[in-house]
Amino acid sequence: MDGAAETTDGYQAWSEVTPDAARRLLVAAVEAFAERGYHATTTRDIAGRAGMSPAALYIHYKTKEELLHRISRIGHDKALEILDTAASGPGTAAERLDAAVRSFVRWHAAHHTTARVVQYELDALAPEHRGEIIALRRLSDAAVRRILSEGVGAGEFDVPDVPGTTLAVLSLCIDVARWFNADGRRTPDEVGALYADLVLRMVGARPAAGLPQK
Amino acid sequence: MDGAAETTDGYQAWSEVTPDAARRLLVAAVEAFAERGYHATTTRDIAGRAGMSPAALYIHYKTKEELLHRISRIGHDKALEILDTAASGPGTAAERLDAAVRSFVRWHAAHHTTARVVQYELDALAPEHRGEIIALRRLSDAAVRRILSEGVGAGEFDVPDVPGTTLAVLSLCIDVARWFNADGRRTPDEVGALYADLVLRMVGARPAAGLPQK
Repeated sequence: MDGAAETTDGYQAWSEVTPDAARRLLVAAVEAFAERGYHATTTRDIAGRAGMSPAALYIHYKTKEELLHRISRIGHDKALEILDTAASGPGTAAERLDAAVRSFVRWHAAHHTTARVVQYELDALAPEHRGEIIALRRLSDAAVRRILSEGVGAGEFDVPDVPGTTLAVLSLCIDVARWFNADGRRTPDEVGALYADLVLRMVGARPAAGLPQK
Repeated sequence: MDGAAETTDGYQAWSEVTPDAARRLLVAAVEAFAERGYHATTTRDIAGRAGMSPAALYIHYKTKEELLHRISRIGHDKALEILDTAASGPGTAAERLDAAVRSFVRWHAAHHTTARVVQYELDALAPEHRGEIIALRRLSDAAVRRILSEGVGAGEFDVPDVPGTTLAVLSLCIDVARWFNADGRRTPDEVGALYADLVLRMVGARPAAGLPQK
């Protein structure tokens, strides 16, 4: 995760999308969906925001739903990569949970506009695309659940309800996208640090786990 | 809080709205905004869902924004009432925090459709209405902050960052509206109980506080 290149929802964040015109259209679609909602946005609106004609848009995306699916897919791939990297990393379960929460929160804070679209417009996806995205979400859930289970198994954590606590941890991090304000008092890193501490408390991580307490 | 009368987003939940036609329109507006978003919904759509003519709608609501404002106001008044009741109740800070989280979560689970509209369409409110709603949100925040501060003062809680933890507690509860599924495995009461335990862990509530420890 390169923090510096990941601090905005803008152009840089979509470097994997090529060619340039396709990327501009994706950025324009994120902004339009976030401002007015998916259903109130037309492909003409999106093309206009990208400084292109509707005909030019259709070269890259056949439908508005294809744009939403592409945005949702990239967002969910990133989320899974962040959580899998943390879950598979070195260190104790507490260290891995700390890393997972910090990087997941940082992503939702820095990319709050994209994350809102990804989270709030799931119902607008075509059924086959929704199925694909739900499968990715299950894998993200499994990555966090794995850390919690391993922490319980190692005697590091005290978690009576692993699936419920997994859900709560992910929910807490995802909701950062709703309230985070880039002009607010807290940076993405600061929210990540606060939330990592709160989540370690939620799982009853012991002081003996070697992490700084507080 | 009457749990039985508060278990759906439907007609019953808006009993304070009179006359009957005004209430039907409000319920229809919540459903339409939740399905298609505020900007993609017309007053004609709303009137049609309520089985009324656009002219009949205008007798009760002059604009679409007036409907959103009414929904948002009722939702935020309810949230504040729930949190204030818990904050001002009897018992230790841990008992009051437990009550606040349980009832706030229960409301967001039972009324997830309304809560989504209330949370995700804030930007669509007219400036003067947005100001009024933000003031109510600050009061809700203050109610939770008060419980945390009193718990710290009484030596019941260990909370290094009271404003940040307040934000996280409210965020965790609010996001229940996003993921809660009435057909899912957990009831609103079960989510409330799980979350109350997780939040007491977040604030480092001591076993001595007299709540069941797990």
